[in-house]
Amino acid sequence: MTKETADWIAVDWGTSALRLWAMRADGSVLAARESDQGMARLTPDGFEPALLALAAPLLDPGRVTDVVICGMAGARQGWIEAPYAPVPCSPLSQLPVRAPARDGRIAVHVLAGLSQAEPPDVMRGEETQIAGFLAHEPQFDGVLCLPGTHTKWVILRGGCVREFHTVMTGESFALYSEHSVLRHVMEPGWDASAFAAAVGQGRDRPESVATALFAIRARAMLDPAGAALPGVARARLSGLLLGLELAATRSIWQGRAVVVLGAPALCAHYIDALEASDAPAVRFDRDEPARAGLAVAHQRIVKGAA
Amino acid sequence: MTKETADWIAVDWGTSALRLWAMRADGSVLAARESDQGMARLTPDGFEPALLALAAPLLDPGRVTDVVICGMAGARQGWIEAPYAPVPCSPLSQLPVRAPARDGRIAVHVLAGLSQAEPPDVMRGEETQIAGFLAHEPQFDGVLCLPGTHTKWVILRGGCVREFHTVMTGESFALYSEHSVLRHVMEPGWDASAFAAAVGQGRDRPESVATALFAIRARAMLDPAGAALPGVARARLSGLLLGLELAATRSIWQGRAVVVLGAPALCAHYIDALEASDAPAVRFDRDEPARAGLAVAHQRIVKGAA
Repeated sequence: MTKETADWIAVDWGTSALRLWAMRADGSVLAARESDQGMARLTPDGFEPALLALAAPLLDPGRVTDVVICGMAGARQGWIEAPYAPVPCSPLSQLPVRAPARDGRIAVHVLAGLSQAEPPDVMRGEETQIAGFLAHEPQFDGVLCLPGTHTKWVILRGGCVREFHTVMTGESFALYSEHSVLRHVMEPGWDASAFAAAVGQGRDRPESVATALFAIRARAMLDPAGAALPGVARARLSGLLLGLELAATRSIWQGRAVVVLGAPALCAHYIDALEASDAPAVRFDRDEPARAGLAVAHQRIVKGAA
Repeated sequence: MTKETADWIAVDWGTSALRLWAMRADGSVLAARESDQGMARLTPDGFEPALLALAAPLLDPGRVTDVVICGMAGARQGWIEAPYAPVPCSPLSQLPVRAPARDGRIAVHVLAGLSQAEPPDVMRGEETQIAGFLAHEPQFDGVLCLPGTHTKWVILRGGCVREFHTVMTGESFALYSEHSVLRHVMEPGWDASAFAAAVGQGRDRPESVATALFAIRARAMLDPAGAALPGVARARLSGLLLGLELAATRSIWQGRAVVVLGAPALCAHYIDALEASDAPAVRFDRDEPARAGLAVAHQRIVKGAA
């Protein structure tokens, strides 16, 4: 009995991590691998060795295996630059770029990101998750929210990305909670009612966030007992920033169907905040959206080559 | 001829720096010294050695010299905790706290900060600058703005601090420009028109700041030529954050006389932003306000002891 090898390989290559799936021809997953060899750690000639470190045992030496990559491997500082496709467009409308590879067993295809001229915006990686979502919901007309370090709000209609907006809420929360004076009061835990109140404040009085941030620290200093309630300061910081995000994106989510796509705990905060804002939202929890989008791209590559 | 020694010693002891003036009885400065031995670097028993490292040569061995200290040396993590005085009150209404000292040549007095119950806020060090300002302008009725890492907006009337508000604009600018994804586009320079436009946006549409931050990065990526204009991204980031601050503090500065007190370059940005908001502001540039406030406190200590 010979060892089973991959029909093709799907890769989600982010700034800080590399995730890889060896796929069978029937769409099932033969093997999943990951490493910490994200784009930020690699120079252009480091991508092929990082890929092969995970993929080599899954390759059939007798043929060329397609490797389809989304994410930061296509950035200017990545393996090879895959230009942005301007919206409105379908999320995988652009032809992938072939990346140079010394190893004859692989043909490497890097997917393009999306760009928007006004207001200026870019994404790289999320377009593939959007394609994965659309593979399940091709008729979806509404807003897709992808929470993360840089949360993306995406208006979809007719299978196309009409417009999108990036908010740095995840990165802002990390900066304030880990690197600012507020880090001194960030106890573990999560107070849901403090979060809800802060979301409402940030959403309805966005300007007040500027003064409310230092007040988190001051309240804890003036009332050490109250501040010791687990997770009040953390939930309040998160809520203020998410409320400000909802104020900034109100014209996008208000009156539209909203689907949230991402890690369950983070999505739950967004769904709570949206529901408290009279915007019922649901989480998309089928499949692995990046992998599903890579499968869509692979199908097109196969058809294009045939 | 004997070496001249200090009549008393004024100390502004911040988080990251220690500034000291040896004062003559006539109010003139015999010597100024500073070091990087701020509160953040010291444990409680490290304060006296750090002080003596600068002050020892200025002390008369034949008598006890008063040392008057404002700032973070009075914090809980400082030399000795000097409690906050609740506003409304005059800025130096509270009696100083005596700090323990082994060296018999010094009597150390640590000034109290100010606190506010609602909205919760604290200051430590700025109250002494306010007292220094009031020594020159005892009848001032209006707003004092002290820009910095944590900018203070202070309503003064009848020699009293009526209320105050802290905004973390300086710290936020440092976090985003040095530690976020925006650091990649922070070229040197300063584009005044980009700053003015961003102030207006942040002030009049504060919610839009949440989406405008990542757009600074995206604009530079999509238009490398335009982004290379020196200082556009930096001025835009600063302007958005300062505009948001003006939106948050509008009820404080609108319709009141505003005096800005602090480092000239930073004050100039605040004055530009306020003037563009129909709020004429002037910079207070007489004397060294912290030292002037410490002199007021010293006078009270001398009278109290007499």
